[in-house]
Amino acid sequence: MESQQLGRMPYFYGPQGTLVQVEAALEAVNRGSTTIGIRTADYAVLASQLKPTRPLVDPAEKIYQIDSHLGATGAGYIGDVLKLIQELRVSSQKHRLTFDSAVDVKTAAENLSSYLHEYTIYAVRPLGASVILAGSDPTGVQLYQVDPSGTYFKGSGFAIGSGSEESLKVIQSEYKRDKTLEELKELATKAIKSATMDDSQIEFGVVSLEGSKFLKLNSPN
Amino acid sequence: MESQQLGRMPYFYGPQGTLVQVEAALEAVNRGSTTIGIRTADYAVLASQLKPTRPLVDPAEKIYQIDSHLGATGAGYIGDVLKLIQELRVSSQKHRLTFDSAVDVKTAAENLSSYLHEYTIYAVRPLGASVILAGSDPTGVQLYQVDPSGTYFKGSGFAIGSGSEESLKVIQSEYKRDKTLEELKELATKAIKSATMDDSQIEFGVVSLEGSKFLKLNSPN
Amino acid sequence: MESQQLGRMPYFYGPQGTLVQVEAALEAVNRGSTTIGIRTADYAVLASQLKPTRPLVDPAEKIYQIDSHLGATGAGYIGDVLKLIQELRVSSQKHRLTFDSAVDVKTAAENLSSYLHEYTIYAVRPLGASVILAGSDPTGVQLYQVDPSGTYFKGSGFAIGSGSEESLKVIQSEYKRDKTLEELKELATKAIKSATMDDSQIEFGVVSLEGSKFLKLNSPN
Amino acid sequence: MESQQLGRMPYFYGPQGTLVQVEAALEAVNRGSTTIGIRTADYAVLASQLKPTRPLVDPAEKIYQIDSHLGATGAGYIGDVLKLIQELRVSSQKHRLTFDSAVDVKTAAENLSSYLHEYTIYAVRPLGASVILAGSDPTGVQLYQVDPSGTYFKGSGFAIGSGSEESLKVIQSEYKRDKTLEELKELATKAIKSATMDDSQIEFGVVSLEGSKFLKLNSPN
Amino acid sequence: MESQQLGRMPYFYGPQGTLVQVEAALEAVNRGSTTIGIRTADYAVLASQLKPTRPLVDPAEKIYQIDSHLGATGAGYIGDVLKLIQELRVSSQKHRLTFDSAVDVKTAAENLSSYLHEYTIYAVRPLGASVILAGSDPTGVQLYQVDPSGTYFKGSGFAIGSGSEESLKVIQSEYKRDKTLEELKELATKAIKSATMDDSQIEFGVVSLEGSKFLKLNSPN
Amino acid sequence: MESQQLGRMPYFYGPQGTLVQVEAALEAVNRGSTTIGIRTADYAVLASQLKPTRPLVDPAEKIYQIDSHLGATGAGYIGDVLKLIQELRVSSQKHRLTFDSAVDVKTAAENLSSYLHEYTIYAVRPLGASVILAGSDPTGVQLYQVDPSGTYFKGSGFAIGSGSEESLKVIQSEYKRDKTLEELKELATKAIKSATMDDSQIEFGVVSLEGSKFLKLNSPN
Amino acid sequence: MESQQLGRMPYFYGPQGTLVQVEAALEAVNRGSTTIGIRTADYAVLASQLKPTRPLVDPAEKIYQIDSHLGATGAGYIGDVLKLIQELRVSSQKHRLTFDSAVDVKTAAENLSSYLHEYTIYAVRPLGASVILAGSDPTGVQLYQVDPSGTYFKGSGFAIGSGSEESLKVIQSEYKRDKTLEELKELATKAIKSATMDDSQIEFGVVSLEGSKFLKLNSPN
Repeated sequence: MESQQLGRMPYFYGPQGTLVQVEAALEAVNRGSTTIGIRTADYAVLASQLKPTRPLVDPAEKIYQIDSHLGATGAGYIGDVLKLIQELRVSSQKHRLTFDSAVDVKTAAENLSSYLHEYTIYAVRPLGASVILAGSDPTGVQLYQVDPSGTYFKGSGFAIGSGSEESLKVIQSEYKRDKTLEELKELATKAIKSATMDDSQIEFGVVSLEGSKFLKLNSPN
Repeated sequence: MESQQLGRMPYFYGPQGTLVQVEAALEAVNRGSTTIGIRTADYAVLASQLKPTRPLVDPAEKIYQIDSHLGATGAGYIGDVLKLIQELRVSSQKHRLTFDSAVDVKTAAENLSSYLHEYTIYAVRPLGASVILAGSDPTGVQLYQVDPSGTYFKGSGFAIGSGSEESLKVIQSEYKRDKTLEELKELATKAIKSATMDDSQIEFGVVSLEGSKFLKLNSPN
Repeated sequence: MESQQLGRMPYFYGPQGTLVQVEAALEAVNRGSTTIGIRTADYAVLASQLKPTRPLVDPAEKIYQIDSHLGATGAGYIGDVLKLIQELRVSSQKHRLTFDSAVDVKTAAENLSSYLHEYTIYAVRPLGASVILAGSDPTGVQLYQVDPSGTYFKGSGFAIGSGSEESLKVIQSEYKRDKTLEELKELATKAIKSATMDDSQIEFGVVSLEGSKFLKLNSPN
Repeated sequence: MESQQLGRMPYFYGPQGTLVQVEAALEAVNRGSTTIGIRTADYAVLASQLKPTRPLVDPAEKIYQIDSHLGATGAGYIGDVLKLIQELRVSSQKHRLTFDSAVDVKTAAENLSSYLHEYTIYAVRPLGASVILAGSDPTGVQLYQVDPSGTYFKGSGFAIGSGSEESLKVIQSEYKRDKTLEELKELATKAIKSATMDDSQIEFGVVSLEGSKFLKLNSPN
Repeated sequence: MESQQLGRMPYFYGPQGTLVQVEAALEAVNRGSTTIGIRTADYAVLASQLKPTRPLVDPAEKIYQIDSHLGATGAGYIGDVLKLIQELRVSSQKHRLTFDSAVDVKTAAENLSSYLHEYTIYAVRPLGASVILAGSDPTGVQLYQVDPSGTYFKGSGFAIGSGSEESLKVIQSEYKRDKTLEELKELATKAIKSATMDDSQIEFGVVSLEGSKFLKLNSPN
Repeated sequence: MESQQLGRMPYFYGPQGTLVQVEAALEAVNRGSTTIGIRTADYAVLASQLKPTRPLVDPAEKIYQIDSHLGATGAGYIGDVLKLIQELRVSSQKHRLTFDSAVDVKTAAENLSSYLHEYTIYAVRPLGASVILAGSDPTGVQLYQVDPSGTYFKGSGFAIGSGSEESLKVIQSEYKRDKTLEELKELATKAIKSATMDDSQIEFGVVSLEGSKFLKLNSPN
Repeated sequence: MESQQLGRMPYFYGPQGTLVQVEAALEAVNRGSTTIGIRTADYAVLASQLKPTRPLVDPAEKIYQIDSHLGATGAGYIGDVLKLIQELRVSSQKHRLTFDSAVDVKTAAENLSSYLHEYTIYAVRPLGASVILAGSDPTGVQLYQVDPSGTYFKGSGFAIGSGSEESLKVIQSEYKRDKTLEELKELATKAIKSATMDDSQIEFGVVSLEGSKFLKLNSPN
């Protein structure tokens, strides 16, 4: 009887100390568009499946310019992704005003991480979206992933959304540190296609060490 | 037993990460009046079924002037639609005061999206209404749909409310980019009739690239 | 199992997207006094059954003067009706102070609609009362009904409270646009009697295009 | 299954739109002391059973002076009655300060009605007490009853508390408009005794048109 | 099914309009120390059983000096009694500061009553303690009892706590209006012993008309 | 059915008026370290078992200096004990600042009692810790125990935590009013050992009438 | 039946006075990375398993610089660890600003303890992370562990996270007070490997008495 009691009373935590609402938010991420980020020392590419829409509806923007040197993409509830992008843009401008310099990618990821974490503590809804950030700062070209729990990762290859496991396998097996920008885009395309198994269009954003600019590529439509 | 626990504890999120209250709000939208928006490069038409009312009751206004260049329509709980229209009007006037220029259609849609999204995070009720916005701004004639989750879409043909699937089929099969305004209205009429299967009157609003004005057409009654 | 989960978790919304507490508030309205409003181009009449009371108790006032040109009546919980009447009076005076002119009937109805709508969003009680407003303004003699959900209707014939369906049938079958004020009062009386099936006294309020005044008629007791 | 869902979710409203907590508050009133008010054009009498107490305990005061021209009595939870009496006294003094005149009886009743109504909307406890007010103002001698829901009644004969139905029958069958003050007191006594069926002492308060004073009569003990 | 619904939904009120949490608070009082107050025109005595404690633990103070002319005792949760005593002392000092005179006993009881009543309305815990107040003021020697519901009584003999019914029987059968102070103390002792059936020590406080002073008698230990 | 209802609805109070969460907090105290206080006219000793810890972990401090003349110890949740110690230190310093004198032991206990009591009224967690206070003030050497409910006791021998009943038996049977400080420490040691049945180390704090100083003895490790 | 009631009503406390949500938070800690701290008089070493990540993902930082003389590591939810690290850094800087000196290790641990404890009292989520602090201050090289309940320990050897029991056994059996820094690192490595049973990389931080500096060692990747 006791274990039933223990199971019934927790509100935030479920059995074995899992954060029940955060786990559910992650499930929402796993149903989002296939979205990836790949990085070398010189370049980073963000790429996201533009989910096939009905005719006469433009696919939603999936690659977002945050600052001149910084971009982001996300998967999960569109409304939640949009809120996080807005938060990234605001905190990036605040950084410029406060420190008179561009925010470095790690700080941007940490800010977003704190922001998401707050939603896991109080009786509100943890946001159902993960974000991948790519940018160039004095430490080089950087790539981060931030999750609904407020956890963030730094790395050279990330995939989120539906089919992210298949995408990761492709990235991991074909990644090389000396790929050109064009090769990175090809790898990103192949990784997404391996997950979506269809002709979904893909939106790209790229950042280069040289020039330190994040650019959205012309969207296919 | 564990899966029962997981199923019972979530409050905002249901199984598989769905937002339970937002899904319910969408069901309310699906029971609303058949409402559509169609756009070409030169024109956009908003059209909404005036649900047959009792004798001696005027059908409720379904097409709303937001600003001189911007109009909107909606489906779902009437009280919720009215609240969103009021929000659109206020944020449009705020934009004029702050930036000394008319709000562009995308910004209006984004504002409404943020507004709706807030209601999905806290322990309040997500609003049970979707809105279609049409307007003319320096980027041309634009058409957006915004949903209870805060998601928004840009496109050339939208339908919400009951029978929206039937309406969309008609629009998709007959849409041409070079339709005249009169042809757009005819298409809108046909699309709504295919869903309502009756003689419901229809209210129209139109916006033209030339002159950049949104106008409600004379209501039939 | 899933449908049980979905059914159990919603708080504001019930199955199929209904607003559970608002539906319950409407049931309270349906148990109120039979109350009607009829309008022509020249006159509007508000009439409400004075529910038979015990001896030695005066029937409660059912027709309320809001402003010199505007009156209202309501059905549902008396305390809720009184609160709405108070709100109408206050917002009408605010309008005079702000705009230096009498509030038009549509604006008064919209204000009341917003006021009621707020109670449907938060964890408070939606008010259990519907209101019929009649007034004369520069657009002519106008008649509106406002419901607990914040929905409002404009028209020429409304009935709320118990037996409202019977009353509406009478009004719809006998309404003519050229009825005199006396004929309107006769029609209102007949409509209420058809619902109450008894000798309940009726309180009346009238507004005429000429003179733009709303007047409560001498109450029968 | 659906009807179960509908039954379970409401919080303020129960089935058929009843206000569950307010109904419960009324049950508390119905268990209170038998308490009545009777009015003619010239006099009003408030009378309330002093519930038999243990030896050595003074019966609680049941007739309260609100202002020189105004008195009140109540039935239900004593703590709730006391709170309402305090509210009446404060709002009566506020009226004197604001308008430099004594509050009229109707306004006092309306203020109390609004005060009680607030407790029915939010997640607090509706007060379990009804009040009868008697006073003399420029409109004559007036008598009002105010209930937990915020509903108020104007009349010439009221009874609340346990046995109120029996008391009302006596008042209704023997009331005459030309009764003297002494006859009113006799009628009040008879009405209360018919309900209590015992020798409970009774406390009285009277107001006369002449002189416009409310006076508590000497309490029997 | 309906009655189940009605039973399940109330929060503050239980079936038949009882205040569920307040009833529970009264049960806590009924398990407290046997505590009594007796009054004649010239004297009042407060007496409370000092519950047998473990060796080496002093019995808790049960008679509290509130002001020079006013004392109190209580039964129920000790923490709650202490909070009420603190409230009495503070409100008594406030009265001196505001009116430049000692608080009369009735006003002290009314203040405490309002204080306790607030805890019955909101989602907090009604305090589980009753208090007996004795004091001397211009109206003579006065004795009041105040309960968790905010109800207060005036009288010449009160008993609260466990065995209060037995104590009351003794007081009622032996009380005489002309008892001397010593006789009152003897009666108080006998009344408490009849309830406790043991050798519990008793703490006393007395107030006399002459001199208008409340004094704690030397505690037995 | 009724009794089920009564059992289900209470939130703060359980059946028979028990404070459910406070009872649970007391259970937490009963699982804490064996902790005692003993007092004569000249000395007081606080002693607390240092629960056997893992190797390489210092036992937690159990005797706390509050002020130069005042010390405390506690049993229950360590985090809760620490919070109470912090509260005692702050309120002791506040007393010095406000009254320019050291707080007397009774006032310190009363302050802590009020602080703990607040946590029993609102929808927060009652703290799971009891505290024993020892100090020297103008009234002599004093010893108090304060419990989660806000109840406090004054005395010459207290024991809290696991095995407190065994400890108390030892103290009660061997206590003498003329014990020397060294004998008090021996008694304290014997009392704790009788409960812990092991070689747990013990931390001591002592206060003497002469000099009015509270001193922690050198901790054994 | 009664015991069921008692079991159902508690919210914060479960049966036997356990803090249900805090227990769940501890389970989250127990699933974290194996993380240890070892101290001698001259050195302290923090070491934490870098959980094997996917290829192309950098392992998350596990050793955090708090101040020049102070470092920390943690196990549990990464987002919660990050929040605690941020709190440590802020409170350390506050201490410098307020007292113009570096925070001592005990004060840093106490601050963190209070911070964590607050989350156990209110209706929020206790944080699911434990922290080990190492630093050098005027009292020497110090090592503390702080848990979700707000409990903190001082010692020479701690292990948290998954496999912490195995790690502790290794530390306890091989610890010597005169180990060199290099030997401490070897012991830390052996302790972690005994728990992880794999080739997980390990991140180190060290603090020395001489120089009073905390340094993160070069991370292996």
